[in-house]
Formats: sequence, structure tokens, C-alpha cells
Amino acid sequence: MIDADDKSPPFELPIRVYIEDTDAGGVVFHPKYLHFMERARTEWLRSRDVRLRAGMTDNISYVVQRASIHYAVAAYLDEELRVTADLVRCGKVWMEFHQQVLRVPDGVLVAEATIKIACVALDSGRPRRLPAAILALAPLPGRPD
Amino acid sequence: MIDADDKSPPFELPIRVYIEDTDAGGVVFHPKYLHFMERARTEWLRSRDVRLRAGMTDNISYVVQRASIHYAVAAYLDEELRVTADLVRCGKVWMEFHQQVLRVPDGVLVAEATIKIACVALDSGRPRRLPAAILALAPLPGRPD
Amino acid sequence: MIDADDKSPPFELPIRVYIEDTDAGGVVFHPKYLHFMERARTEWLRSRDVRLRAGMTDNISYVVQRASIHYAVAAYLDEELRVTADLVRCGKVWMEFHQQVLRVPDGVLVAEATIKIACVALDSGRPRRLPAAILALAPLPGRPD
Amino acid sequence: MIDADDKSPPFELPIRVYIEDTDAGGVVFHPKYLHFMERARTEWLRSRDVRLRAGMTDNISYVVQRASIHYAVAAYLDEELRVTADLVRCGKVWMEFHQQVLRVPDGVLVAEATIKIACVALDSGRPRRLPAAILALAPLPGRPD
Repeated sequence: MIDADDKSPPFELPIRVYIEDTDAGGVVFHPKYLHFMERARTEWLRSRDVRLRAGMTDNISYVVQRASIHYAVAAYLDEELRVTADLVRCGKVWMEFHQQVLRVPDGVLVAEATIKIACVALDSGRPRRLPAAILALAPLPGRPD
Repeated sequence: MIDADDKSPPFELPIRVYIEDTDAGGVVFHPKYLHFMERARTEWLRSRDVRLRAGMTDNISYVVQRASIHYAVAAYLDEELRVTADLVRCGKVWMEFHQQVLRVPDGVLVAEATIKIACVALDSGRPRRLPAAILALAPLPGRPD
Repeated sequence: MIDADDKSPPFELPIRVYIEDTDAGGVVFHPKYLHFMERARTEWLRSRDVRLRAGMTDNISYVVQRASIHYAVAAYLDEELRVTADLVRCGKVWMEFHQQVLRVPDGVLVAEATIKIACVALDSGRPRRLPAAILALAPLPGRPD
Repeated sequence: MIDADDKSPPFELPIRVYIEDTDAGGVVFHPKYLHFMERARTEWLRSRDVRLRAGMTDNISYVVQRASIHYAVAAYLDEELRVTADLVRCGKVWMEFHQQVLRVPDGVLVAEATIKIACVALDSGRPRRLPAAILALAPLPGRPD
């Protein structure tokens, strides 16, 4: 039996807001949060010894299939953010992440998203099985997410 | 009575894929479609004589609240795309757009999104009434979207 | 003998400034001018039937070797710019462009750059001969640039 | 007398190459190095307690006036880079930086630039005196750079 209390906190990446991330409205430009989330997923993979470029050499690439993002409050230049990456569901050829962008130090939720990623062959774009190293990271089927 | 046949086709903006839009996977980097969609909304506003910068002078800004995007097929360097912007719903302080990215010339759907935008005061970030020029563009309540 | 009066005006691409191009300082973010200049070079090539992606299929890529850019005045959201691309010098494996970003409609110089591009093999990154289609576009040795 | 041996090594910021930084040529997109260099200058300022956003509140902004960049070798997805920021010259209203992008761990030079920054009033764009906190950081006139 899976106990929710056993759940470890999701992976987190600290990210600083630079001038490149902002727009003339004075806030972080909304698509940049997808960049931040991609960085967090990449670092989560790296923390588990999966490398994107090495994957490409093996004809493996990852493409985003769906993204649903809610923008809660604006983030500003010079702020520090924490970006989480939590693999919540997984099929043979896809992964679904829940990701949050939180403001440091008060933990206020800035943005939140569900992102579905497909594993594809780099040359053809066709779906292919996730590498064993990732499948081994998949949450158990009964995981209460 | 509103007849769906009366509905005019949505606004469209042609967009070329440049090297800046692509990534090492050889395809358009997924957050760039949000850029393309923002450009189409901006040009739709411009076609109706609403200017973003002039709005800022009047303390009006627009922020994305929610975005749900489905990526159907990849787009590639040098391709030409058509990006639609269709205002489907509207409140006093928000607008909801349905947007598609279509490949030229075959019309294949590349990506599709629902984007909810809030009108805010530039200085405080608080919700404020949409300008009259935009409210006048709003679809009728009974519009069958 | 080459007469400067024979010189045709350089290729120009119109570019609109979108919110994605601006930063929290309220102006176009300085690296974006390199994007604009790259788009103008790409469209100049396209106007001469040279396609970047088709080149990649033939193992041809282009990399910037040097860029010197002078920022004269700021550009702002909603402004329209004209970006020129003028091939001023050319070797067997490189091209040098002079490029200007001009404000519409008053023609004020916004930014100006000299950009040296090398032709390389996509797989190895090693220099390779420019395609014949480009060498044919090269300015004459005596051209008074 | 100033002894070059006294010179401390320049400020360095580690930067990871993410998929967002790459293009369809498989390498880091050339304007991104200007992003990396801006981040390093910002972190150098932060290490000396100068904050960009706080400056904006005081009507202070910084704009790039000139940038000359040499691209030595390509950088690739997943690589780690070190980006230096060395203030080499300084006037009353401007700073000049020498910056390098070095590959980790072998220290190979990836790119190198001289960047001249002007201090301006955020509202008018007119030159204004550098803040005292920055002038205090300026290299001595006789510094052998």
C-alpha cells in the first residue's frame, strides 16, 4: 500500500529572474515560465543521470504534447524563484509533470502547470519507448496523485 | 438570433519560422508558439486600432491568466505558418481567445490553444475594466462558441 | 569600372516590435537586434532562392564568427522597424554583412552592425565553401564598400 | 604603482546550456551569449549589492551602447559554461566590460566580448551619472587593462 506521507518533496530548481525574462509590462514575460519549467525537468533528469544531448545521439528526443498553465501572480526582475518538477504519471511513451513556480522566500505560488511530454525518435518524430532509466523513475500506478 | 453561418473567419497573422524559433531537436521550441499567438492577438488589436503601448501610457496592461495548449505536429525552420486569434468570450476585465497555428500551404494544424487574458492596471497589477474599444469587439453573449 | 551610383539599395525587411522583444526597461532588449538582423539575412537569402533548412539537409550551416553592434537610440513596443542586410565582403568560406535597423517612418538609425558569418559543415563544424548560389551574389572585388 | 599581480580574477557565473539556448544547427544560438553576459554583469552587480530593479525605482537604467563579440567555438546542449564579467574602464556615465564565455571543465574559450554600457534615466533615456556604489567599483585609471 502506498502512503501519501511517504511521498518525497518534488525536485526543485532555483531560478533568478534576469532582464531577459521581463517585458515592457515590467513583469516576467508569460512564455518564460515554460522555459523555467523545461530547465527544472532537465535538471531533474540530470539528477537521475539522464542527459538530453546524449539521448539525441541515441535518436531520442522529447516533445511537449500538452501544457496547461495558470498564472497566479506576477514575478519581477531580480526575484528568486523555485521551480518544481514532479513526474505524476507515465505511460510507455509519455510522461506527465506537475510543476510549480514559487517565489523565494515567501513561497507564494507564481504559476502552476501540467505538462505532458512525449518521447519521440529524433529523426522521424514518431513516438518511441521512454528510456529504461526514465521508466524506472515512474511513479507507482497506485501513487495518489 | 445569431446564425453561426454569419460568423466571419478569425483574424490571421502569417509568421515565418526563423532559426531563433528552433531548438537542437530541429523543431520550433514549444514556448515560441505562445510568442506567435501573442503577436497574432496584438495584430488583431492593432487591426481594430487598439495599441498596447498607448494603453500602457493610460496605465492599462494585459496579462495572461491561463493558457492551455495542444501541440499537434512539429513545425520546422523556413516554414510559413498562419496564426489565428479569435475572441470567443469576454467579461468586464478579461478576454478568452481560441488560437490556432496552421501550416502553410496545407493548413495542417500545428498547435491550438485557449488563452485567457486579464486587463490590469500597469502600476498595481489589479484587474481593471477592458477599454471600451475592446468591449465593443466582444462577441455577443449568445454567440455559439 | 564600378560606379557607386550603380549600387542598388540594400535588402530590407520590415519588423514589428512585439512585447516579446521588450524588457522591463521599456525598450527592445539589446540581443533582440541580432535576432532581427538574422531574420533580414535569412530573408535576403530566401529572396535569392537560398533556403537554410534545405542547406542543412546538404550538411551546410552558417555560424556567426564576429558581430560588432552599435546601439544608437532605443526602440519601443509597437514601433515598426526596417532591417537592412547588405553583403559587403565575401571569401570562399565567409560573408560579411553591414546591417542597419531603422525606425519607420522617420528613418532614424536605431542600431548598426557588422556581422561576419562562416559557412560550416553541419556535422563537424568545420569551414566549408559557400554554396555557388551565394558566391554568385558576392559583391565585386572592386565594389566601393 | 599598480602591479598586475595584484589583479584579482574577474567575477564568474556558471551557466548551464538548456534546450532554450540552442537552435536547429545544434549549437547555442549566437545572441544567447549576450544574454549570458548580461546575467554575469547582473550577478557581478548583485555581489556588490547593486540591484537592477531597485535602481529602476530610482529612475536608473542601463543600456548597452556597443558590443563587439567574437565567437570562437560552438557550445552545445547540456554543457556547463563559466561567464566572466570584468569592468575594465569606466567614465562618469558609462562602463566597459571585458567578458569571456569559457567551457567547463577544459576552460576552452567559447566567446569573448567587449561591452559598453551607459547609465541612463529610465524615464527620458538621457545619460545620467553612475550610482556612487558603481563608481566606487571602477578600476583605477592606471590599471593595466
